[in-house]
Amino acid sequence: MAKHIDPYSSELFSDYSKIMKDFGIEHFQSEMFPDLNRLMRRGVVFGGRDLKRISECILDKKPYYVLSGIMPTAQKIHLGTKMVVEQIRYFQEHGAETYILVADMEAAAARGIDLTDARKNALDFHIPAYIALGLDPKKTTFYFQSDNREVLMLAYEFAQKITLNEFKAVYGSADPGRILSALTQVGDILFPQLKKRMPGIIPVGIDQDPHIRLTRDVVARTKSKYGFVPPSSIYHRYMPSLDGKQKMSKSRPDSFIELPEEIKSVEKKIKKAITGGRDTLQEHRRLGADIEKDMVYELLKIHLIEDDAELRAITEDYTAGRLLSGEVKQLAIQKASEFMRHFENKINEARKQKDLKFIRF
Amino acid sequence: MAKHIDPYSSELFSDYSKIMKDFGIEHFQSEMFPDLNRLMRRGVVFGGRDLKRISECILDKKPYYVLSGIMPTAQKIHLGTKMVVEQIRYFQEHGAETYILVADMEAAAARGIDLTDARKNALDFHIPAYIALGLDPKKTTFYFQSDNREVLMLAYEFAQKITLNEFKAVYGSADPGRILSALTQVGDILFPQLKKRMPGIIPVGIDQDPHIRLTRDVVARTKSKYGFVPPSSIYHRYMPSLDGKQKMSKSRPDSFIELPEEIKSVEKKIKKAITGGRDTLQEHRRLGADIEKDMVYELLKIHLIEDDAELRAITEDYTAGRLLSGEVKQLAIQKASEFMRHFENKINEARKQKDLKFIRF
Repeated sequence: MAKHIDPYSSELFSDYSKIMKDFGIEHFQSEMFPDLNRLMRRGVVFGGRDLKRISECILDKKPYYVLSGIMPTAQKIHLGTKMVVEQIRYFQEHGAETYILVADMEAAAARGIDLTDARKNALDFHIPAYIALGLDPKKTTFYFQSDNREVLMLAYEFAQKITLNEFKAVYGSADPGRILSALTQVGDILFPQLKKRMPGIIPVGIDQDPHIRLTRDVVARTKSKYGFVPPSSIYHRYMPSLDGKQKMSKSRPDSFIELPEEIKSVEKKIKKAITGGRDTLQEHRRLGADIEKDMVYELLKIHLIEDDAELRAITEDYTAGRLLSGEVKQLAIQKASEFMRHFENKINEARKQKDLKFIRF
Repeated sequence: MAKHIDPYSSELFSDYSKIMKDFGIEHFQSEMFPDLNRLMRRGVVFGGRDLKRISECILDKKPYYVLSGIMPTAQKIHLGTKMVVEQIRYFQEHGAETYILVADMEAAAARGIDLTDARKNALDFHIPAYIALGLDPKKTTFYFQSDNREVLMLAYEFAQKITLNEFKAVYGSADPGRILSALTQVGDILFPQLKKRMPGIIPVGIDQDPHIRLTRDVVARTKSKYGFVPPSSIYHRYMPSLDGKQKMSKSRPDSFIELPEEIKSVEKKIKKAITGGRDTLQEHRRLGADIEKDMVYELLKIHLIEDDAELRAITEDYTAGRLLSGEVKQLAIQKASEFMRHFENKINEARKQKDLKFIRF
């Protein structure tokens, strides 16, 4: 049995079902949710915790919240972040109060970004980008972590409730920096409930499950004082890297596509990406593409093709050998270019947005 | 060799010189400082770190600061806190910029006091009490820890610089609550240097030395980024408890005197206190009192008699057997009553003080 999940590792989980079994993570049951989004329909969203609680809120129109954080280290995000935003958007469109915190404190303290720059990055780029990707600024509450005394107070208080060994059991290690960062995240996750106890959902990659577990432990331990509702979580798998190796990694810039990114550069990366095309044309026509290994197909499926019928047609043609890898790459380049142009337009529009719901403390 | 000092223990150190040797703490050399105060003259102040740096600031009139914290858990302090205030006052009167932080965050998070009550306690009681004990409010900068984002940012950043094992080496243990609390203290200690790098002195009991060492370690590790001056510290020994057992303890209310405290109650405690009087009058007259074991004599020496000649006369008469324990107790009761009345007057005056130098962030 896996002893712990390390949210700070760059490893990509190869066996999600084992991890899920070991840590008691539920399978995502699509019949519980209405109007599934692309990620839900296509098995990218695969699991979570306490999802029924959220499903009930949606179906019974009861209050709940969705929460996520922005790490404002640079004025760009990668496609993994786009998935998170799409998940937030789904819940926002299904009645969730939406909280987006800017982790300026962690960016400044742990990643060496000046606090002023961290805030500038968030205001100039991340918040407009999240809006460009579909969040409704009128329905979204943003705040800066470093402004939020209540979160810091919670973190401070929760520190008293967790022993070092419990921390190690969840995270595998326990350096002071991680402890502070994790406890601040727990504070952020529970902060919306200070005003009103209600279910909440946190859409993250499964590698962030330790933070969810820690939060749920803290909720159990502070029950008599706070009576927080244990937060639910919903997990999506990561987009594997274009070069077919593990998770996308900053150390291998060709392994991932950023937002924004020059179309030329995207084109180059897609052209170099690993596909499931066969060694010869003849073989390809006979066997069809091995789409399981095809990163360009993944890119289309996860990010670039919204319409299910369109994806189905491509899948059929590609696995039947009627479509070649080069053609699929061309299609991906065209779709990615359209997406990039669309994103640029939308983010410029969003930058003009003046009426953000920003908590200033 | 003692492996570590535990600032969270209620143990009283019996052998200061061993602790000092083990941890490289300097002896207090009274010739380095002008106009010694009562605690310095009488060996209550006995050690420190980097005291020469502070001595030079005083003699050369160079900028430096003195810093201390208020723990606003209840509207009273004990006499140990009075010693700290007297030390702060000494440095304030010798040119130090004075910073007093209110540890409302720690009071709320770790000691279960409501944040509003913590602030109220500080404003209604502790700050007036510190002024009553001699601090000049016009020369003292107060702030609430929970308001001070810069301190919290520093704590967050410093957490990245210390490993768990290093933390354990300093403190002996490392629970998340202690880590957060200690790092916040490090942030507080260095905060005045954010505006201006300068020496600083922290007057504390020796049991707080681990915080000073941690701070000095952090200063060394952040040298290239911050270039903080390592803080100096000055240590006083604790007043032993009136019942002759270890440190004063909240679990034994007769063991210590509080500020404020009803005169009746003080009288009762002094009457019950352990003295160095002999078993019979005859023996006492012959041998004189054993003042080393006499808690009432300690109380007079440390707190109640300012004038050296007056103390000398009492010491001579008591050790020669001319003064009896009962008489010394009577004297202590009279002096303590005067002090309590004086303190009450002064604190009421201080409560009218409107022009506090309070940083609001």
